[in-house]
Amino acid sequence: MKSGLNFLVAAKRCEIAELQQLALTSALVNVSARLVHGLQRERGLCNLYLGSLGTRFAEARAQQIDDCRRIEAELRACFDTLDTDSARPGHGARLFSRIAYLLHGLDALPALRQQVDALQWSARQATEAYVRLIAGLLAVVFEAADSAGDPEISRLLVALFNFMQGKEFAGQERAAGSALLATGRAETGEQQRLLHLIESQERCLQVFTEFSSPEVGALWAQTQASAPLAELERMRRILGTAAHSAPLDASQCQAWFDCCSLRIDGMKAVEDRLAQDLQRVCEEKITAARGDLQACLALSAPTAAAGDPLSFFRDTPAPPGGSAGAGLAVPAHGYGPQLERSILELVQAQARRLQTMGDELDTVRASLNERKLIERAKGLLMAHRQLSEEEAHKTMRQMAMNQNRRLIEVAEAVLAMAAVL
Amino acid sequence: MKSGLNFLVAAKRCEIAELQQLALTSALVNVSARLVHGLQRERGLCNLYLGSLGTRFAEARAQQIDDCRRIEAELRACFDTLDTDSARPGHGARLFSRIAYLLHGLDALPALRQQVDALQWSARQATEAYVRLIAGLLAVVFEAADSAGDPEISRLLVALFNFMQGKEFAGQERAAGSALLATGRAETGEQQRLLHLIESQERCLQVFTEFSSPEVGALWAQTQASAPLAELERMRRILGTAAHSAPLDASQCQAWFDCCSLRIDGMKAVEDRLAQDLQRVCEEKITAARGDLQACLALSAPTAAAGDPLSFFRDTPAPPGGSAGAGLAVPAHGYGPQLERSILELVQAQARRLQTMGDELDTVRASLNERKLIERAKGLLMAHRQLSEEEAHKTMRQMAMNQNRRLIEVAEAVLAMAAVL
Repeated sequence: MKSGLNFLVAAKRCEIAELQQLALTSALVNVSARLVHGLQRERGLCNLYLGSLGTRFAEARAQQIDDCRRIEAELRACFDTLDTDSARPGHGARLFSRIAYLLHGLDALPALRQQVDALQWSARQATEAYVRLIAGLLAVVFEAADSAGDPEISRLLVALFNFMQGKEFAGQERAAGSALLATGRAETGEQQRLLHLIESQERCLQVFTEFSSPEVGALWAQTQASAPLAELERMRRILGTAAHSAPLDASQCQAWFDCCSLRIDGMKAVEDRLAQDLQRVCEEKITAARGDLQACLALSAPTAAAGDPLSFFRDTPAPPGGSAGAGLAVPAHGYGPQLERSILELVQAQARRLQTMGDELDTVRASLNERKLIERAKGLLMAHRQLSEEEAHKTMRQMAMNQNRRLIEVAEAVLAMAAVL
Repeated sequence: MKSGLNFLVAAKRCEIAELQQLALTSALVNVSARLVHGLQRERGLCNLYLGSLGTRFAEARAQQIDDCRRIEAELRACFDTLDTDSARPGHGARLFSRIAYLLHGLDALPALRQQVDALQWSARQATEAYVRLIAGLLAVVFEAADSAGDPEISRLLVALFNFMQGKEFAGQERAAGSALLATGRAETGEQQRLLHLIESQERCLQVFTEFSSPEVGALWAQTQASAPLAELERMRRILGTAAHSAPLDASQCQAWFDCCSLRIDGMKAVEDRLAQDLQRVCEEKITAARGDLQACLALSAPTAAAGDPLSFFRDTPAPPGGSAGAGLAVPAHGYGPQLERSILELVQAQARRLQTMGDELDTVRASLNERKLIERAKGLLMAHRQLSEEEAHKTMRQMAMNQNRRLIEVAEAVLAMAAVL
């Protein structure tokens, strides 16, 4: 028959398994981040290639495609290491279904590149295709952040997800600005879209700042304190404030692109650092949890005599310094006659620690609610108005721009309306 | 290399594994509920036995102890079926650590019974010991409700947990009222405690009503529409309103006990019904999920030709009737040239369905926050004032009674104070 100690050990083993799972997921997130970066560059070069009607950037684009293929192969290898055979309860279903979607997108990537090779798609169409693919990658990172069972790791994933999403908005801003300048004329709709992208970007970066460590925050501030950013803000102002159909200087196209690219490449350093921190924290936590497990196992040594069972009904004072943060270290008074009580204290400390972790987790995950509300509102529009996901998204974005409100406010309004109907 | 379809199937398999896990947990909850009921009766008889100084109720108590031993053996057998060897990520750690605590309590039960046999513990001490043991069982049910990954099952578990907790307060009310009447004199502290138990009980039953189905709600209303309840309310009024140190009719002790017992036994029927519903819903969901899995597997038949990969970049209109509730049935237009698109639609429908389930789950789990806040405040008091769990609980309950506030309000005040300090 299994004892309390068996379950204490089993609980500890589950925690380790969860952390190992998170380490795998973090490796996957790391490769995903690199693929997102690669595809962002490929998208930019594809736009320049299409803009030049295939006369320029062909080589740079081919090189970038090679790069992306390599990272894609790495990501697929990561997916292959995920244990899809032994179905396990937990958050697997959500992560796997995001991966299933993403794999369809990656399968479609060669066909997309062929369309671009043959100049059969417009820059706009191609951009939208890349945006969708990158969104699929981001959804995997989001799911990882939402399903992580450790608050510290979840916090890092939330910071990374928001940073990646912000960087993607920056990439879309680069594309939208380039397209606008290329036409040589201001156009209110496109200008609004540009401003919307800047705003969404800043919102994401703000959440990233809230959740990142002081060191990463400092690194971010440092990459931001550069000349290109001032130049970017100057060009943003010109693009954003030009009157409708006023002429724009099309020769600024390259300058805009370079300026945006410098910033985005700078963001890469922060992203890399976050991904590194993530893997380091996973490893540290696994080591610590293994130490705790050893402490538990030491208790089941054959010398362990039966203690006083009635200690269960006596009050156990809280260990000094608060039980919440206490690990499973062997109590100072050792074992022996106190054994039963010692195990009981470990069990209680563990239960309390897991609960505290659960509370912290809830707090971290609450920051992901904004995106969930937007997705929920989108789903509602799709169902009620028979819209595609893209159409639903565009409808909400248009409402936000027309009413000068944030996307989350529009989503809340849509959901509130649904509750009334 | 794994395909999108592999991950779609893997996601479905994870869902099934989660449901099977929930079916096991539900079986465990079912036995736990029966053991709680048995221990509540044992506690009642133990009080009567101690009250009569061992001259009466010995046989009834012995019989009840036999009953409890049988159910305990069943519960331990349930625990033995839990897979503690293959550590899995997910919520296992929390459930297992609650079970570890509970097993220590069950191990201590024979010693507790010996203390009572020998009349070495007062009725008060014995009652507190049983309260603690039953709290350990309820914590297992709470954890099951909090970790269930399916909103409908989580909802049933929340209803069941709150009902069980309400019933336990009713049991404590029975004990407190008996003790008060036995002394033959009103005592403000004990009267306050009685009123506190009635209020806590009603709060739990209110949450139960919110979360239970109309059928179970009707069953509950029916068991409540009986003569004993009116009699109980009359006696509650007398006990609650008597002036301090006014005489109480000690001969009413048995009447009070019988009246409370009738009500508690009536509650058992509702509890049994909820436990049955729980197991039925688990089975139905497993069957449905298996059907969905077959539909997925049918797609990987060797006849499946490669479809148009570019459909990933085209807008897929939402299926009529809303994608959120849609299962994974084969689309009306069948497969063939549409295969790629069909799989993609399944993947998107699944992602959306899992997301909706996640949203619903968050809503259901929010109802468990009250208990979590109280536990968090308790932990804080334990850490900051070096109190035992029991002392911390008593401190908060005393604050609630003194300030005429609900326990959750006191907990919020404690937590707010901590945030300030």
